[in-house]
Amino acid sequence: MSSSGNDMTDKLEVFDCPDGVAVIGASRDPEKLGHGILSNILTSGYQGNVYPVNPKTEEVLGLPSYPSVKDIPDALDLAVIVIPERFVPDALRECGEKGLKAVIVITAGFGETGVEGVHREQEITAIAREYGLRVIGPNCLGVIDTFCPINASFAASMPDQGNIAFMSQSGALCTAVLDLAVAEGIGFSRFVSLGNKADVDEAALLLKWKDDEHTAVVLAYIEGLPDGREFINVARQVSARKPVVALKSGTTEAGSKAVSSHTGSLAGSEHAYEAAFQKAGVIRAESLRDIFDWGLAFAYQPLLEEPYIAIVTNAGGPGILATDGLERAGLHLAQLEATTVQTLREGLPGAANVYNPIDVLGDAGADRYALALKAALEDPKVKGVIVILTPQVMTEITETATLVSDLAGQYEKPIIGCFMGEAKIRAGAEILNRNRVPNFPSPDRAVSALQAMWDYRQFLSQPQAEPDEFDANREEVQRILNEVRADGRLTLGEAEARGVIAAYGIPLPESRLARTSEEAIEIAENIGFPVALKIASPDILHKSDIGGIRLDLKNANDVRDAFDLIMYRSLKHMPDAEIWGTLVQEMVDPGKEVIVGMSHDPQFGPLILFGLGGIYVEVLKDVAFRLTPITEREAAAMINEIRAAPLLRGVRGEKRSDVKAITEIIQRVSQLVMEFPEIVELDINPLVVHNEGAIALDARLSIDQRDS
Amino acid sequence: MSSSGNDMTDKLEVFDCPDGVAVIGASRDPEKLGHGILSNILTSGYQGNVYPVNPKTEEVLGLPSYPSVKDIPDALDLAVIVIPERFVPDALRECGEKGLKAVIVITAGFGETGVEGVHREQEITAIAREYGLRVIGPNCLGVIDTFCPINASFAASMPDQGNIAFMSQSGALCTAVLDLAVAEGIGFSRFVSLGNKADVDEAALLLKWKDDEHTAVVLAYIEGLPDGREFINVARQVSARKPVVALKSGTTEAGSKAVSSHTGSLAGSEHAYEAAFQKAGVIRAESLRDIFDWGLAFAYQPLLEEPYIAIVTNAGGPGILATDGLERAGLHLAQLEATTVQTLREGLPGAANVYNPIDVLGDAGADRYALALKAALEDPKVKGVIVILTPQVMTEITETATLVSDLAGQYEKPIIGCFMGEAKIRAGAEILNRNRVPNFPSPDRAVSALQAMWDYRQFLSQPQAEPDEFDANREEVQRILNEVRADGRLTLGEAEARGVIAAYGIPLPESRLARTSEEAIEIAENIGFPVALKIASPDILHKSDIGGIRLDLKNANDVRDAFDLIMYRSLKHMPDAEIWGTLVQEMVDPGKEVIVGMSHDPQFGPLILFGLGGIYVEVLKDVAFRLTPITEREAAAMINEIRAAPLLRGVRGEKRSDVKAITEIIQRVSQLVMEFPEIVELDINPLVVHNEGAIALDARLSIDQRDS
Repeated sequence: MSSSGNDMTDKLEVFDCPDGVAVIGASRDPEKLGHGILSNILTSGYQGNVYPVNPKTEEVLGLPSYPSVKDIPDALDLAVIVIPERFVPDALRECGEKGLKAVIVITAGFGETGVEGVHREQEITAIAREYGLRVIGPNCLGVIDTFCPINASFAASMPDQGNIAFMSQSGALCTAVLDLAVAEGIGFSRFVSLGNKADVDEAALLLKWKDDEHTAVVLAYIEGLPDGREFINVARQVSARKPVVALKSGTTEAGSKAVSSHTGSLAGSEHAYEAAFQKAGVIRAESLRDIFDWGLAFAYQPLLEEPYIAIVTNAGGPGILATDGLERAGLHLAQLEATTVQTLREGLPGAANVYNPIDVLGDAGADRYALALKAALEDPKVKGVIVILTPQVMTEITETATLVSDLAGQYEKPIIGCFMGEAKIRAGAEILNRNRVPNFPSPDRAVSALQAMWDYRQFLSQPQAEPDEFDANREEVQRILNEVRADGRLTLGEAEARGVIAAYGIPLPESRLARTSEEAIEIAENIGFPVALKIASPDILHKSDIGGIRLDLKNANDVRDAFDLIMYRSLKHMPDAEIWGTLVQEMVDPGKEVIVGMSHDPQFGPLILFGLGGIYVEVLKDVAFRLTPITEREAAAMINEIRAAPLLRGVRGEKRSDVKAITEIIQRVSQLVMEFPEIVELDINPLVVHNEGAIALDARLSIDQRDS
Repeated sequence: MSSSGNDMTDKLEVFDCPDGVAVIGASRDPEKLGHGILSNILTSGYQGNVYPVNPKTEEVLGLPSYPSVKDIPDALDLAVIVIPERFVPDALRECGEKGLKAVIVITAGFGETGVEGVHREQEITAIAREYGLRVIGPNCLGVIDTFCPINASFAASMPDQGNIAFMSQSGALCTAVLDLAVAEGIGFSRFVSLGNKADVDEAALLLKWKDDEHTAVVLAYIEGLPDGREFINVARQVSARKPVVALKSGTTEAGSKAVSSHTGSLAGSEHAYEAAFQKAGVIRAESLRDIFDWGLAFAYQPLLEEPYIAIVTNAGGPGILATDGLERAGLHLAQLEATTVQTLREGLPGAANVYNPIDVLGDAGADRYALALKAALEDPKVKGVIVILTPQVMTEITETATLVSDLAGQYEKPIIGCFMGEAKIRAGAEILNRNRVPNFPSPDRAVSALQAMWDYRQFLSQPQAEPDEFDANREEVQRILNEVRADGRLTLGEAEARGVIAAYGIPLPESRLARTSEEAIEIAENIGFPVALKIASPDILHKSDIGGIRLDLKNANDVRDAFDLIMYRSLKHMPDAEIWGTLVQEMVDPGKEVIVGMSHDPQFGPLILFGLGGIYVEVLKDVAFRLTPITEREAAAMINEIRAAPLLRGVRGEKRSDVKAITEIIQRVSQLVMEFPEIVELDINPLVVHNEGAIALDARLSIDQRDS
């Protein structure tokens, strides 16, 4: 598709403003969707030609009807198909033959209904590819564009023009969102119901909206992303230009079933999505409320440059609620400059609070709000303002809304309205909204919007570094993996796993395989006492569970006893396991034990885990995840993210661990699993971190099934 | 006040429906509050006599005006005072002399304005006590009662009648809430603006509302609770009868400043409030939205008896969002009975999902909702239902609302509406609301309401056990504390602290004080090697920080070296500390180290902390708090609550710790600090827990300053 890639992207423009639209399945029956869609196109102000297609009638809504799209005498760009599912493939083929660029398939009854539907949907995808058609749907509500304008959907309402673009996998959600948006005056640029995504998906639309001058912020409701990597790549480019806010619902079980180790059981798909959004700079909303609140804040207001906020309020209680919220959100009350305090003291009554939150008192009229808000906005320490208003006896609601609106335009700082109540404040809220100051009637929502802004600001300020590239012995890794496959296995033995990670420069203690206790003693004497013995078997994953590890063996006798004991226990607990002997290993000085793991997420590929070793990962679930490739910055962030991070930095007499060494090992693991995609699971556990350096004591590694 | 206690509580009834009301400060000027309040009383449907009091006029709003309340010819119950603050005390005194039962002081300018105001407020409290008057305010909005009915406030709107009682410390918040309530049709029984709480506070109102037949649920906005213990006692009684939902704002710094140990720095007032609400069964809301959503759910619907929910929806996406929400909230999708699935399969189209969430499909009319909702409600596995509706083309919004309302009355299971959107669904939402089915337009809010219900249900099912009482040597504790005071100290030395906790039956290793290294050796030989040495000084709290602890000393030489080293280090790091010598202590077998601590919260008294010992409390902040007295059940819950709890229960080869022994020690500490309120800080750290038993290795203890 690379040769026609640009062409295919250009064709997406057709969904915004096509030159001519056919409605295949246009109907005279007002109860039918085919009627509603045609009517919507005609009443939405669309300036192009519209062609009903319906072989059973001659005229629909005053327009001549054609038996087939091929009978239309003019050239045209787009068709909307709304006919029973069994007729859709033929209709689509005719669109292709007629030379259309794009089609919206409203009809349901495809992938969502079972095997037969999946086949029908695959047919649609194939026809689209064959004719170079871009297809939205099937099983969708349609597409609305407020700039063309055109309402090519069966949604009864057309939202206001605005600079928010919205896409949703769920059509039903679109109807609820539109209903809300129309009532609250939320404006959109593009509004797309994606449906089953037989062709156009989230990534395709994102890429298009990246350069869309009418779109300042992208909102997306996402249920699943089959091509997760493509989404990340595209979303990352878009996020660098404009905020992308997503609400992700559902978590598949597939991800966690695919792997069975610690990493896998902790990873699941939820962690992968979290990591994906993080990598892509996508701001994740937790509810429908969030996504639209944040969308409005981004669309209407300049970005929050630093997390220092002033609160102006005529009510103490809500001011405290907002303050609580700011602190919980990691934002801060700005400390006002002395001159600001002076201005406030001179202008406000004696009982007013002239520090932050600035309390203009319950009897404040618009003038006091004006004075306080202006003083706050002019204070260089203040980077954003929340204006709280409760409807008290003397409150001048609309006047205050007007002056807040006026001031909002004059400073490059975000202002969020928090006019609380409903009936009385409605007129004020409408003034704010009309003037592009978002109003949220409770302090927590105002704070949440500023928090989203600050999250995005922090993403923007991250340098987009490339991951480091390390020297590695790729041939050695390939040789080991080939051998394992030749042996009919998917799980590597410890010695093999050690070989793989050693080839990528990850430090390991000296270690050799002993098949007999005499051999073990000989190796131990070579390495130097004390040593550790570990069962060597490709079938035994959790060595300590069966007592397969003996530590701190100080002499030949210790080694002989340990060897025999390990053999006895292994045979007793796992009589069918293939036993190679024991590894004799140099004892490593104690240090902090951490885990670096990797599992393969079906949507997003290699997912790396980091946590404090052993039981603290399992019990406290204190872990961080990132998707590959991992930069030095991301690796450092992972380490910082776990709650136990201060333990590594050294607290209360504990030694500082070599965090830089861990950072490098995480990056090396990332590089390894990227260069060998056949690795589906890897655990370095424990990785012992010292004051200087880190050393891997144990490693486990599995590769994927493959046709050979 | 005990003799007149009942009388004082009876007098609170006057605020609901007084027999005669005077408005002191009634005004002819429509701009004045004294006008608005009189007008509100007259137009609210109040049936009793109303008397304007204003010496400067003869008539207000058609009623004769009196120079003073004492000039009113009839007996009356209540006065509302709205005159400048300097005249308030005299007016209040006149009310007392006239024999009124209760007064609402609207006037501001008291405790909230500084020292002078505090004195004026104290005067008010004193006058109230002197005359046995109950006073609401000063600095409040007033009181509304929809059953009397009477609107004795300056709020312009009167809410609908309902069974929600609301109290708020913030008057401004009341105005916003009323505005919202009037617009959304939320009904109240009582609506009280508490103001500065010179007399009537949260606990007084709660106690009154406990038996109020018109009140099914109590909502409270709280900024501070000076008498925290009284609040807990009362709220606990009320919670046992009806839900109490509170929104607490602000956290004072006073709490965390008062104490300086680990416990103190972690405790703060936030933890104390959390523990207080938990003990009292008060359901804590995080936002204004929560408090009213939950209030409506409790007021309108029967309680959720078990956490198994069915979702009925015409849209897949919102169904998934609701499912996500349920799982995150600790609720579960009910697994439908086979007969239910059969009924759904027969009644719904083939493409419908007949499992849970039940998807009736986008083209569902009211009949399909009826069938699905009835089937869900009749399923014994289903304990509550969320009905999601998105406004699609075929959706019968008002018909569906009507049938949901009809079915809601027929089953003892909560039903929450989730009609999504705004303009189109408004009529449906109003039908639901009118029929006492709460409607929340997003799935997360519907889930949140059910979660609050389930939290409350769990509180109700807890047996209200008394704490165990343990034998203790109180005389010994008193003797030690007296000695410490006699010595001019507030901090106990380790030997003293050991003495105190030993007197309450908490196990300790054998340990004796050595003043010289020779004495240390002699004691060690008596106890038996190995031993530990610890610096003994009332001035050194963090012994390990200065190297004041040496462990595992195996012989006389070790002991001598350790003694000398500890002395050297102590003198070096803290040359001014009083040094008593070292404690020579029996070495205790290693086990899990935990902390049991206590700090004194200024509002709520002794606050007990439990956590895994040492660094994990400080770094991972993995701790649980409870207020005394602590029952066995509460102590067990504390242990279970920390994230690391599985480590104590024994996982992956770790030994099981004696949780019952910790439970008992927590209770013994609770009893100790209750019986000796002069103890303001206590830390047992570490408490070493073995497979059987637990033993305290170190204890710290401080007592309060006291006039002697």
